[in-house]
Order: sequence, then C-alpha cells, then structure tokens
Amino acid sequence: MVFKRTGCNDMKLWSAMSAGAVARSAAFFVIALALSGSLAIVPASARKLVEGVGTFELENGMQAVVIPDHRAPVVTHMVWYRVGSADELPGESGIAHFLEHLLFQGTETIPPGEFSKIIARNGGQDNAFTSYDYTGYYQRVARDRLDLVMGLEADRMINIVLRDEEVLPERDVVIEERRSRTDNNPGRRLGEQMDAVFYLSHPYGTPIIGWKHEIEELNTEQAAAFYEKFYAPNNAILIVAGDVTVDEVRALAEKHYGPIAYNPDIRQRRRSQEPPHQAARRVTLRDARVTTSQFRRQYLTPSYRTAEPGEGPALEVLGQLFGGGSTSRLYRELIIKRRLAVSAGAWFYGDSLDSGSVGLYGAPAPGTNVEELEAAFDEMIADLLENGVSAEEVEHAKNILIADTIYAIDSQSRLARIFGVALTSGQSVEDVQEWPNRVEAVTAAEVEAVAGKYLRIEASVTGLLLKSEEASQ
Amino acid sequence: MVFKRTGCNDMKLWSAMSAGAVARSAAFFVIALALSGSLAIVPASARKLVEGVGTFELENGMQAVVIPDHRAPVVTHMVWYRVGSADELPGESGIAHFLEHLLFQGTETIPPGEFSKIIARNGGQDNAFTSYDYTGYYQRVARDRLDLVMGLEADRMINIVLRDEEVLPERDVVIEERRSRTDNNPGRRLGEQMDAVFYLSHPYGTPIIGWKHEIEELNTEQAAAFYEKFYAPNNAILIVAGDVTVDEVRALAEKHYGPIAYNPDIRQRRRSQEPPHQAARRVTLRDARVTTSQFRRQYLTPSYRTAEPGEGPALEVLGQLFGGGSTSRLYRELIIKRRLAVSAGAWFYGDSLDSGSVGLYGAPAPGTNVEELEAAFDEMIADLLENGVSAEEVEHAKNILIADTIYAIDSQSRLARIFGVALTSGQSVEDVQEWPNRVEAVTAAEVEAVAGKYLRIEASVTGLLLKSEEASQ
Repeated sequence: MVFKRTGCNDMKLWSAMSAGAVARSAAFFVIALALSGSLAIVPASARKLVEGVGTFELENGMQAVVIPDHRAPVVTHMVWYRVGSADELPGESGIAHFLEHLLFQGTETIPPGEFSKIIARNGGQDNAFTSYDYTGYYQRVARDRLDLVMGLEADRMINIVLRDEEVLPERDVVIEERRSRTDNNPGRRLGEQMDAVFYLSHPYGTPIIGWKHEIEELNTEQAAAFYEKFYAPNNAILIVAGDVTVDEVRALAEKHYGPIAYNPDIRQRRRSQEPPHQAARRVTLRDARVTTSQFRRQYLTPSYRTAEPGEGPALEVLGQLFGGGSTSRLYRELIIKRRLAVSAGAWFYGDSLDSGSVGLYGAPAPGTNVEELEAAFDEMIADLLENGVSAEEVEHAKNILIADTIYAIDSQSRLARIFGVALTSGQSVEDVQEWPNRVEAVTAAEVEAVAGKYLRIEASVTGLLLKSEEASQ
Repeated sequence: MVFKRTGCNDMKLWSAMSAGAVARSAAFFVIALALSGSLAIVPASARKLVEGVGTFELENGMQAVVIPDHRAPVVTHMVWYRVGSADELPGESGIAHFLEHLLFQGTETIPPGEFSKIIARNGGQDNAFTSYDYTGYYQRVARDRLDLVMGLEADRMINIVLRDEEVLPERDVVIEERRSRTDNNPGRRLGEQMDAVFYLSHPYGTPIIGWKHEIEELNTEQAAAFYEKFYAPNNAILIVAGDVTVDEVRALAEKHYGPIAYNPDIRQRRRSQEPPHQAARRVTLRDARVTTSQFRRQYLTPSYRTAEPGEGPALEVLGQLFGGGSTSRLYRELIIKRRLAVSAGAWFYGDSLDSGSVGLYGAPAPGTNVEELEAAFDEMIADLLENGVSAEEVEHAKNILIADTIYAIDSQSRLARIFGVALTSGQSVEDVQEWPNRVEAVTAAEVEAVAGKYLRIEASVTGLLLKSEEASQ
C-alpha cells in the first residue's frame, strides 16, 4: 500500500497519517463514539492527547511506544522504519515501496507468501504501507498472539530472503499497482506531475510508488542493498496499542527484537533541500477520462519539524478555517453562496521530515469552469491576506480540529499511526501529546502571520485537470 | 566558467558547444574568413567537416583527437572529462564545477594558483568549463610549449592537493560567481526555475553551478571524492588542435598521460531518466529589475545520441528555419511583419548525453505584451504543424546551418570544442565529420515529422519573465 498526499481525492488514503491529517477527514467520523474503558482520551482543555502512553528503548537502539487500550482483548502491533521513498537513490525510485512488498516474500524460516497466511490463521489482519519518510508494517491480532506476530516481524527485520524467482514476479505486481492506481487515474496523474514541478530539488517530487520506467528496472540486488542499509533495530520504532501493559510489551520486545544487532552505519537522514521558490508554476493535464474539471494549488511551507515554534499549529488552523469542511470559508462561499463549485477545500500537511505544504482544491459546478473557480479562490486568498481572520472563526476551527482528532483516535490503529508518523518525521511523543494544547493556543494574529508568510504565489504550483477538448491555459 | 543553455540571452556562452550550437551563433561570424593553409575545411557537398583529423587511444584508455592546423605556430590543448553536473550526488549540486575551480589550486609540485601563472609566463592563455555532461580544461600556447602544458595537465589529473585553506576560500569565489551571474540576473533565474520544472526527474533540472544552499555546504572531502571517482585517463579525452602532427601528439601523450593508471571503477554513466511528460507547465517570474518582458518555451526532444536516425539533424533544421536568425519564420513574421516582438527565435540543443530540447524565445515590442506574443507563437506553431514546411525554406535553412558551422570552425578552439562536446555526449568523431552530410540529407517531410512528434505542449514548459507589477498568469 502506498500512502500519498495528493489533496482532495485521496483523503481516505492519507487520513490516518497524523493528528493533523486525521482532523481533515472529519467526514468519516461524524458519529461521535461513546468513549469508555481504559483508553482514557481527554478533552482539549486538559494536558495530553492520550493518557497512559509508555515509551522505552532497547539496548540496540530500537524505540518503543506502548498505548494501553483495554476496551477489547486485541492489540495492534506495528514496526515503523525511518526510511521512505525520499531516501532512495536517484534512478531507483520505488525501491522503498517495492521492498515493503518483498517483506511478505519469505525469510530463512517462513516460506514465500506464508507470513500473511499465518496471521490470518491466527484470526488476525496485517498489511504494510510506504510513504516519503517511513515504511510501516502492522498486524492486528488477539492479545495472546502478540508474542507470535512480534516473532514474525523480528524475523523479517533481519532474515529476509530475496531471490529473483519471487522478486521479479512481485515487481510485476507493483507495476500493475501503479497502472491501476496512478496511470489510469487522471487526478493521481495530475498530482504526480504537480509534485514533480512543485519540488525543484527535494525527493518529495518523486512519486512514492516510483516512476514506471524505473520500477521496471528494479532488481533483487537493489532491494537487498536497500534492506541492508535501512532495516535495523536502531532505525525502527515499535508501536503497540491495545490490551497490554508497557511491561508486557517490554518483555516481548526484549525477547524478539533485543537480540538483533545494532547497525553502526545508520545515519541521520539528509536529503537535498529545496532552493528558494522564486516563480509561480502551473501544470495543465488533459485527459479524455476526466468527467469533472479540477483546480488545485499547493504552497510550500515548513513541516511541524522545521517550522518556527507555533507555526505548525497555526498552519493547521489556517487550513481548517479556510477550507476544512462544511463550515469553512471556501465551502460556505464557493459551494453554498456563489454555487461556483461542487467541491472546495483546503488542507495543511506538516507531518514530514522536511517541508510541508498548504493545499487548495475545487471542482467547478455545472455552468462554470476552472478559470472562474480559480479566480474566486484568488479573490478569497486576497481577502484573507488583506482582511485577516476573526477570533470566532479561529476558535471554531480549533474546536473542530481537536474534536475530530479525539474522535479519530478512538481507532486503535489510527492512534498508533499518529505516533508512528510523528516519530518517523522528526517529532516526539511529547509533540503528539501536546498537539491539542498547541492548537488551542493558536491566535488569529498567528494565523494571519503564517498566511502572509507562506501563501506566496511564487512558492506555489497550480494544477488544472481538464477534459481533453477543454480550452484553457 | 559555467556553460549553460538557457536560450536567447546566453547565446554567447553556449555558442561554442557543438556544431549545431555553433551554427546558432551565426551573428558572431557574419564576416566570412578566407580559409587558407592546411586547415582543410571542405564545403558542404563533400564528405567530412574537417580533413586530416587523427585519433588514437593510449593503453590506459585515454582517447585522443588531433586536428592539424598549420596556419600559425600555436596549439590548443584540451582535456575533457566525461563528468559534469548531471553526475553529481543529490545534495552536492555544484561539486563538478567547484572541482573545476579547485584544479587551479595546486598539486604536489605546483603551488596553489601557480598553474595559470606558468601558462601566462609562457605566453599562453588557459581556462576551464563545466557543463551537464563534461568538464574541460584548455590552454592555448605556442607549439613549442605543448610539452610543458601537457605535463602540467597530466600532473593535475592525479596529483591534485585539496586542503581546506585553499578549498574554502575558493568556495566563496563560486558563491560570488553564482550571485553575480544567476541571482542578480532575472533572465538566468527564470531559466533556472524553468529547467527545474522542465525535468521531472533527470539531473539536467539542477543548475550546473549548483543551488546556492548546496554550494555553501560543499567541502574538501566531497571534492576529493568526486576527483577520485571521475578524474582518470580512461574517463578523459585529449584534444589537440594546431600546428602539430598526430605522431607528435601521440609521443607527448604517451610521455605525459601514458604513465597514469587506468581506473577500473569508471563506469558508463547512468542518470535517472525522464518519465513521460504528461502535463503542460508554466513558470512566471516577476522581478523589479526586469526592463523587457520575455516569453520562453522549451519542448523535450531526444538528443543526437538518443534520437532515431535522422531526427537530430531534422530538429536542427526545424530550429533554424523556424527561428534561427533574420531569415527565419519567427523573425520575419513577428519582428518585421507584425512588429509584435523586438526579439524572437528558436533553437535546438541536441549535444547531450541524455535528452535534448527545442526552445522558443521572444520579447514583446513596446505596446504589446507577452500574452499577445505567446498567442502569436502558438499560431505559428499551429500553422507549422498544420501546413508543414516548404522544400525551399528547408534548403535555405540547411545552407545557413552548414555555412555558419564552416565559418565558425575557423576558430581553432571552437573546432576542438565541437569534438570535445560530441565525444563527452555519446557521439563519435564520425558523427562530427558526417554532420554536414546528415544535415544536407534532411527533407521537408522529416522536418514535419519531428515537429509533429516533439512540439507537444504536454512535453513543454513555458516561461514568462515580467516586471514585478505586470499582470499575467
């Protein structure tokens, strides 16, 4: 599975990626769940996002986060590696995701394809995911199977067997995945082309799944080299959420992951960083399969990790109040009042090791077109920059952000993912725990400051998705 | 010195880069020189571009090309390495060009800064240049000094001394070079941003001189590693033009370069290649220092090396007839007839190891603007694609291309450079020699075919350079 942030049409995919991102998928969680049992989620006015979280580190450098949740006798077991597509060598795009697939292809003791069957025979579910900054593996099983799955996951951290007879057919699977998800999807294709134009130097401009012509050339040797380089306990984070205690997890982790050797060659990640963005960019994709045109734009911002203190939460509030759902400015103005759009929204993505971004998206209503819609977006941006925001809408946006997140983390796996994303993108457990407080502290002046600082057309790319015959620049 | 192809305002810089490129700089060579002596340049109807060219290879793999020219007792001595900015590691942009500077900083026997002084004391001139695919060093000296300069050049192929005390101050020189040539030049800044957007994956999208923030971090260790990796006789081409014989050059080359060890780790260069270009791109740069707006566009094409047989010369003829000087379509239509532009032209650049490009450029006349000018370009492209080209204009374009090249190569150093560029971009001596014949063979149908195949807006980037206050998308 590839996690990708491409704006409006991929919300489901990146909705689980972070506290901030989860908040954007409010539509999926509008039914407030009655919180009960020992997963003590606390309201925004109190201190931490989640109570009872424990952390420890093994002697070989493997970090661990334990999130007790005793509502049901199940556990979510995850291992996150601090490696993603942005850590690939030039010309080897897609190798991080390809290797994720190959980790299901067998070890010295588990035959090819058996891993998931064992999990299923034990009543569990498993999967994996790759993004720019991380690769993660997870299983959800009954609590008494945690020992089993941890043993399996530890095994494939060091004992993977890579042979052409499994590797090459799996490459065809990935090529087909790319074909069906990206090449046959005009919206994804536009997103891919926009990202390639948005980033002038940083590997975030390369698609996570890889360019097709490069996937086709990936081989067993490259996969093995990538595995050797990045898969090690001191490049991994264990996250267990569920019906367990910190001590129980620690004992199992020491048993299974403890014996794995530290890799002294793991280095802090350094990717080529962006030069200053000096020129507004536009990308127009025409495709006969397009049924509704789309307007998109993204602006370069810092990430939570790289931002000045307070800027990350302020950008989050900005995205929410400007375009985060049916009470936002964009929705009210463009969909309800002016009837120019059938969809319209904005988002902030800040859970990256390097830069973040603010995005806008919209689809014109029948009788209008993307040019009119873009002009309306530009008017609204100009108004935002000129007239600022009110204390009331900031308050409202903060409340929604925090409430949505609290609803969202009722899901054990989503909660675990929030920590996984944070820890692989240079944030800390404390950053996750403090997130509601930091959002709560955002002021209207701070929102206006980040809007003025980062909504610069020179640091943006605008994307238009059009039917083949449609006129436009 | 950085060689860069950025279209209209940098013609002088890239004018010496190839037979094709030389042809584009016809304006600099309008006075036909009387050809005499033993530099036997032959007219287009005959077989080779230059008679008497000799080649040989040393046992350590160093290639050599000798171009006898006995008109004056001088020689041009060049060593070209098959390495340029497109061979840099991510995050180390600028290291190829930086190392070129550092080769003047001394060896085990020549103190820092002495190299050029020795050349000057011997009545010679020297310099060096870096591009995407090559790095070159040259000296022009009296023929009896060839032994001396070859000894010096061989010395710095293996004995360079890199110490922080020379390296770090030289880095400041490069940063200043970037500041004065690129950062203070709106046209260059636009070119840099356009290239970064034009190439979705290939390192041709990274500026030769490097991104400023990356130049600032380059260090002695990286320069030494780059030198070790790429500077070796089997990655170098010796080119000597002038008052020498092949046998004389061979004897000196064996004396000076012959003893240098072959490097078994030199590999064929493989850079990340471009994915399909699917979406038209636009870049708008506004700058208070702009006095005249500019329109530019470039389309992705193959290079001479990667093109189907005949496509390279056909693209060259296309560029010439559409926009190569005052008899071209663009000049006659936009400058003379419609008075829409004060400058307008087109070019083809195909002397690359990987892809090539066709470019358009123009500056609006007073009273018009870039939008009107762009619309006029688009009309003319549409007309070209719809109505094709006439046999007469193809004939005329071919004649100019060949005549300009023959005039241009009267310069000994330009002639040497043609061979250097060709051999470092995957072409052969035969390709250079046959170039006039191949241009001569181009038909109108072939020009129409490459126009239809490569002038696709999806594979292009359009750039607008505007005054800060000027309105436009």
